[in-house]
Amino acid sequence: MSYFPSVTPIRFEGKQAQTPLAFRHYDAAKLVLGKPMREHLRMAACYWHTFVWPGSDVFGAGTFRRPWQEGGDAMAMAHNKADAAFEFFSKLGVDYYTFHDTDVAPEGNSLAEYRNNFAQMLDVLERKQEQTGVRLLWGTANCFSNPRFASGAASNPNPELFAYAAAQVCTAMNATQRLGGANYVLWGGREGYETLLNTDLKREREQLGRFMRLVVEHKHKIGFKGTLLIEPKPQEPTKHQYDYDSATVHGFLKQYGLEQEIKVNIEANHATLAGHSFHHEIATAAALGILGSVDANRGDPQNGWDTDQFPNSVEEMTLATYEILKAGGFTTGGFNFDSKVRRQSLDEVDLFHGHVGAMDVLALSLERAAGMIENDLLANFKAERYAGWDGAFGQDVLAGKLSLSDIAEHAFAKQINPQAVSGRQEMLENLVNRAIYG
Amino acid sequence: MSYFPSVTPIRFEGKQAQTPLAFRHYDAAKLVLGKPMREHLRMAACYWHTFVWPGSDVFGAGTFRRPWQEGGDAMAMAHNKADAAFEFFSKLGVDYYTFHDTDVAPEGNSLAEYRNNFAQMLDVLERKQEQTGVRLLWGTANCFSNPRFASGAASNPNPELFAYAAAQVCTAMNATQRLGGANYVLWGGREGYETLLNTDLKREREQLGRFMRLVVEHKHKIGFKGTLLIEPKPQEPTKHQYDYDSATVHGFLKQYGLEQEIKVNIEANHATLAGHSFHHEIATAAALGILGSVDANRGDPQNGWDTDQFPNSVEEMTLATYEILKAGGFTTGGFNFDSKVRRQSLDEVDLFHGHVGAMDVLALSLERAAGMIENDLLANFKAERYAGWDGAFGQDVLAGKLSLSDIAEHAFAKQINPQAVSGRQEMLENLVNRAIYG
Amino acid sequence: MSYFPSVTPIRFEGKQAQTPLAFRHYDAAKLVLGKPMREHLRMAACYWHTFVWPGSDVFGAGTFRRPWQEGGDAMAMAHNKADAAFEFFSKLGVDYYTFHDTDVAPEGNSLAEYRNNFAQMLDVLERKQEQTGVRLLWGTANCFSNPRFASGAASNPNPELFAYAAAQVCTAMNATQRLGGANYVLWGGREGYETLLNTDLKREREQLGRFMRLVVEHKHKIGFKGTLLIEPKPQEPTKHQYDYDSATVHGFLKQYGLEQEIKVNIEANHATLAGHSFHHEIATAAALGILGSVDANRGDPQNGWDTDQFPNSVEEMTLATYEILKAGGFTTGGFNFDSKVRRQSLDEVDLFHGHVGAMDVLALSLERAAGMIENDLLANFKAERYAGWDGAFGQDVLAGKLSLSDIAEHAFAKQINPQAVSGRQEMLENLVNRAIYG
Amino acid sequence: MSYFPSVTPIRFEGKQAQTPLAFRHYDAAKLVLGKPMREHLRMAACYWHTFVWPGSDVFGAGTFRRPWQEGGDAMAMAHNKADAAFEFFSKLGVDYYTFHDTDVAPEGNSLAEYRNNFAQMLDVLERKQEQTGVRLLWGTANCFSNPRFASGAASNPNPELFAYAAAQVCTAMNATQRLGGANYVLWGGREGYETLLNTDLKREREQLGRFMRLVVEHKHKIGFKGTLLIEPKPQEPTKHQYDYDSATVHGFLKQYGLEQEIKVNIEANHATLAGHSFHHEIATAAALGILGSVDANRGDPQNGWDTDQFPNSVEEMTLATYEILKAGGFTTGGFNFDSKVRRQSLDEVDLFHGHVGAMDVLALSLERAAGMIENDLLANFKAERYAGWDGAFGQDVLAGKLSLSDIAEHAFAKQINPQAVSGRQEMLENLVNRAIYG
Ligand SMILES: [Co+2]
Ligand SMILES: [Co+2]
Ligand SMILES: [Co+2]
Ligand SMILES: [Co+2]
Ligand SMILES: [Co+2]
Ligand SMILES: [Co+2]
Ligand SMILES: [Co+2]
Ligand SMILES: [Co+2]
Repeated sequence: MSYFPSVTPIRFEGKQAQTPLAFRHYDAAKLVLGKPMREHLRMAACYWHTFVWPGSDVFGAGTFRRPWQEGGDAMAMAHNKADAAFEFFSKLGVDYYTFHDTDVAPEGNSLAEYRNNFAQMLDVLERKQEQTGVRLLWGTANCFSNPRFASGAASNPNPELFAYAAAQVCTAMNATQRLGGANYVLWGGREGYETLLNTDLKREREQLGRFMRLVVEHKHKIGFKGTLLIEPKPQEPTKHQYDYDSATVHGFLKQYGLEQEIKVNIEANHATLAGHSFHHEIATAAALGILGSVDANRGDPQNGWDTDQFPNSVEEMTLATYEILKAGGFTTGGFNFDSKVRRQSLDEVDLFHGHVGAMDVLALSLERAAGMIENDLLANFKAERYAGWDGAFGQDVLAGKLSLSDIAEHAFAKQINPQAVSGRQEMLENLVNRAIYG
Repeated sequence: MSYFPSVTPIRFEGKQAQTPLAFRHYDAAKLVLGKPMREHLRMAACYWHTFVWPGSDVFGAGTFRRPWQEGGDAMAMAHNKADAAFEFFSKLGVDYYTFHDTDVAPEGNSLAEYRNNFAQMLDVLERKQEQTGVRLLWGTANCFSNPRFASGAASNPNPELFAYAAAQVCTAMNATQRLGGANYVLWGGREGYETLLNTDLKREREQLGRFMRLVVEHKHKIGFKGTLLIEPKPQEPTKHQYDYDSATVHGFLKQYGLEQEIKVNIEANHATLAGHSFHHEIATAAALGILGSVDANRGDPQNGWDTDQFPNSVEEMTLATYEILKAGGFTTGGFNFDSKVRRQSLDEVDLFHGHVGAMDVLALSLERAAGMIENDLLANFKAERYAGWDGAFGQDVLAGKLSLSDIAEHAFAKQINPQAVSGRQEMLENLVNRAIYG
Repeated sequence: MSYFPSVTPIRFEGKQAQTPLAFRHYDAAKLVLGKPMREHLRMAACYWHTFVWPGSDVFGAGTFRRPWQEGGDAMAMAHNKADAAFEFFSKLGVDYYTFHDTDVAPEGNSLAEYRNNFAQMLDVLERKQEQTGVRLLWGTANCFSNPRFASGAASNPNPELFAYAAAQVCTAMNATQRLGGANYVLWGGREGYETLLNTDLKREREQLGRFMRLVVEHKHKIGFKGTLLIEPKPQEPTKHQYDYDSATVHGFLKQYGLEQEIKVNIEANHATLAGHSFHHEIATAAALGILGSVDANRGDPQNGWDTDQFPNSVEEMTLATYEILKAGGFTTGGFNFDSKVRRQSLDEVDLFHGHVGAMDVLALSLERAAGMIENDLLANFKAERYAGWDGAFGQDVLAGKLSLSDIAEHAFAKQINPQAVSGRQEMLENLVNRAIYG
Repeated sequence: MSYFPSVTPIRFEGKQAQTPLAFRHYDAAKLVLGKPMREHLRMAACYWHTFVWPGSDVFGAGTFRRPWQEGGDAMAMAHNKADAAFEFFSKLGVDYYTFHDTDVAPEGNSLAEYRNNFAQMLDVLERKQEQTGVRLLWGTANCFSNPRFASGAASNPNPELFAYAAAQVCTAMNATQRLGGANYVLWGGREGYETLLNTDLKREREQLGRFMRLVVEHKHKIGFKGTLLIEPKPQEPTKHQYDYDSATVHGFLKQYGLEQEIKVNIEANHATLAGHSFHHEIATAAALGILGSVDANRGDPQNGWDTDQFPNSVEEMTLATYEILKAGGFTTGGFNFDSKVRRQSLDEVDLFHGHVGAMDVLALSLERAAGMIENDLLANFKAERYAGWDGAFGQDVLAGKLSLSDIAEHAFAKQINPQAVSGRQEMLENLVNRAIYG
């Protein structure tokens, strides 16, 4: 039985494509900077938005009529969902997928049921991975949707919730390892606060630090070779989320001595909610040495919540991809489409339109960014701009050979009078547009 | 000669005051929690907004007609300005003031002139401090207004600008020490970027780290006993400023091993520009152990720039003051009015209205916060809420006695099924309003 | 059977109240400016947030365990809900309530069922109103939650949806009249767009204009004496909602000649989402002559969605109440608590904490605003500030007696050189604080 | 003497251009949809940002060293500025320019001096227009920079300021007519409020309405054939500006019966400050019949003030241009670069980089938008989507042939049960990307 009978596998047909659903730019095997596109991009579709969300929002019920979401025996539905998901992944031609524990298997009514259900579905997923060749970019645990997590998981005022979350995360990490997942992600959905009036920030931070330490130790214990990732988000559902942005996560990791163990999974829409450009978050994480993976989507610049739309700006994505390439490209990470079709896009074919368009956007962005790298005018410009720091004085300063008063005396003695020089922002912006539009 | 001839010294007259300019709530010597109000609040007026800014904005010229701002010999004007400032501080009855180097002395045309001018004005300030009893809460250096700092100071691509800034900061630190300043502040006005296209984030971060290390070493070398403070701000004038918020500064301090050496000076308006409540920034800095001092002002919730208005919300300030009291109160820090009258408030008397109102707001907030502390229902509520963590299991978890799988097995074995309990947010909000309104 | 057995009717006990749930400030019969508080405030509790919402959000299921929300026969549940609601209204001592059609009666599976269910529940509501004395502030129809309204109601590209909405609104208007409702509200939940790419703004505007015209005509046809109200909101659930703010609604009303027929129901949280202060929206609607009623709540200044929290700022609400009083006070309108307890406030008693606190806040704000009115320093200040316009020249200008060149020639001839005078913003802010804090 | 000796006139060189300053896409005479690019775009450079602003911001002095900005005799400087400006316009190859009265001539110390200076400079401008062929897109008057306008111009509490503004606007309108200006613009720089505490919204609105009426009458009196334009902006420099956005201006025009007389000049950065997309403001003004002209620039999505950057997004500008073409294209309007180089872009050549890049962006956007128009898949999609309204029932509804209860009865009688259909947002977004990227 097919869940998408009207859709044939998506193929690369180039710009001349007449088929409504074809890749015009994403040519998986095409070499870019000597590596196939697919290996650069490591794209993943997600269970969460695409197979779990029913098209509901705060003001209305789900609009989607998905056969695998109809009521009935929960495990039977989970099997259907897996069938639909892997049919979708295969037809789309995406190499990876991602999931939360409770996306793929029903929670059940107890931890025992949770473990059993999940174990059964693991067998299913393992088989489907083998059959299709689709691989797991990362797994994660949903410790925020169940009402029990209303006040958080690891940061909950009640340690039993910490324990409950530990049970899920431990199980999900083991599952991720078994399925050959390339990474394991932690998103602190309700690790934050609704009001400071009832919150002990220090305690909750300690709890979180302990939890992350336990996760790191468990990774090593089970020999998981993938990367641990924290996904920053500033707020929503909580008023304030502790993993606000990359710089905040970096500070947290430094405090608990985890900066060599955990990297970040940067989501475009979370970047903008935090008051940063997506470009900023990527470049910052790279500069701090914690760039791990990316949740590829976009927000709405006028709406103050996580709209998780499919990325459609080549202009924005080219800059992000340029930074990723400059940082050496993805190792275990990749581009996960943490993206959902609009509530009005209620047909199954809309799922394809969303993903196909986004994959073409990433392919275009990769090609444009590769063009920037090949003739790296930005890097050359920067090298010249900072050249003074490569001189003797600059190096002595950075090496700590001079004290503040030494430097001050140098300045007073020489009566230095340095002047500003142009940063050439507009010229550089034009160079980027030239890379994109010729 | 008087610059404020129509204003007599402001007195506490209580709620019955008929005088237009009188304190209705700020009674400097009144004991609150056993300490005089003035010692709790340690309030300061600033040179920068009150005696330097001419009432200009991006779309229009200055509206103020201040005798000490008219053209003429720069040093003569600096003397006039000092006369006006200390007359104002005295009449207002504020215990502290704050300044940038170039607020109090003209920059001149060379570093030599800068040093000489500043040295002369130091004599003046020292004398005025003695005459009036007004003390220096903190000094700082302006390394952002002069066009030479267009691309930053310590983070400038040109190391000569680093050196120039070092000359100013070294001089200003020495001056602050000589004047008995309680703190020394660093605000990274242009330590950030306009565009990532020409910016090497990693290099600039290293430069900043080196600069702060030098400042710390200089402090110890000269035996300065005050506190070093970084003032976070997310953006403006730059598109992105490195010292974005308290959590970001904390991460930076951790990276360079400076977390015992530098604290933060939190500005209310910078908090809100960063997407945080003022309360959040205070509580976060306290939880991270880096709460130093406060720039008391407010932003406009609908305007996206630093409006630096006088604080006028007792509701907001009570929560901030409660956190400060809970953290032990100010040691070297205080409340600096980094606040400016509106461009339309062009009379000198408006400077008094702004400060007097703000001082009353702080006094009211202190009394309300003290009331909350005396009968600390919030602390009691929190203690109960987290009580589970004080038990054996919680303590074992925090102490690292259990691994992730130990905890998971505990959960599976016991089939735990913890449920959410109410966080009582509305009840707690009502308690705060009861503390404020009875 | 009682749904709130642990709660006794809330009483005014004053500031000395020891009872956890008592009014400290709201004394229904107390005269303020010669009128009882209850008649000034005309407060209403709402069905929607308090009896319908299960405590869910986009990232998690409902946390509330409300007996009247458990599954079962839909009509039986509707009866239970009405029992719970009127027990709540009575114990709270609120004079009014508000509802959507589908809050009080199940939609059923067809329009016939909808009409029958609603009719049955009308009998129930009518009886309960008589028994308790609680009255209906306004009714409305929910034309946005059902998936059929995904692309809007009156502005839907499909006229059958317009017709469906007409059926609901017609029914709900008739019901509101029968129940003696003081107003009828229209909130355009999905009257807006998700993307301009598929939207014909002009057509949708025409459809909306037609719908509002039909509503006005129906009101007159059935002899409804209440006020028709549009509730502005800028976005959410749609990307952009047509009734963005009061000024936008005013322009719409003018275009369709409805400005004498429809007023606005201003929600505080919608004001702030639109980039305005609550105060601004109230004052603007009053200045435009379309101030009708108020949805009393607040948003979170750091969160970009409609948090619909209970109002808790006396400072903010005093200014709004002052404007309402200056505009003559409510006629048919009132303060409806379009407010919901937090998802973590999961106990039934939290519903009381939310409402009791909010009612005290409104009572306090009324008293403070009345104080401002009694000695109306703001009005006096304004009268003086604009006094020039009451002179001959100003009156001639406003009366159109002078052309642009006449006025220009007057200016050139007199070589006028008018100068700015202080707007005294800080002094006026201090006056407001004096009204609030003494 | 040349002010830009190093720059030769900018030429179209196509994508193969090696010259750093050449048009790669803007080919003035190239036909697009049968009309030369230059006539579609009607691009203008502005005096204000490019020849008047010194590179200052709120935190620092001007960084630019422009020969025509150095001190000296004001009229001599104005001549130099005009020389520089027209050399720039000519070398750039832009067809239009725009100015404020006080940009081109010094204000002087009295209205008499203002009039004389302006009159002299008019002769200069007229001659330069003839010499270069550069034309005036619009003129305007600066009634916001001088301190006298601190509390507004037409909305000032003092009618003498109204008169002063009338003198300027009358003079500037006459000048615009004499120079053959295609439009006259009114931007309400300080027509708004800083605080409602001292503001009478109703009076100020009446004053503004009167002013606009006078301007309209004057236009007709002097026979000016151009278009009158109001430029909306939500805030800055004021806390709230009355001409908030297009919908607000539309309501204002309706109230004063001016909707046939005045259109809007939409600025991209003002759109985003108002919480709208640029696309929204263009489409809204077109739907309301008041689309006049465009200030082409962009804001920074993370900064909450008017950054007035050069437009550099083809993606954004293509959608705006598509709407403009659909609305019939510009008549008197055009694209004015209300854009400034960054404060760090301090060399004169940066002015060329900014404009050349922006002109190429507009040219690219025009070509992409023309492609969308030629094969108008969006229009076809919309036509189908709304087709129901073209049927008998839809037309009857719109024509007012049915009452609300008629329509309701139709719905109940037929037991209609309309369902949502997909809005196909992702597919449409992909179509737009196909138009841009192939
Ligand atoms: Co994500
Ligand atoms: Co997201
Ligand atoms: Co500050
Ligand atoms: Co500030
Ligand atoms: Co509402
Ligand atoms: Co709301
Ligand atoms: Co403009
Ligand atoms: Co602008």
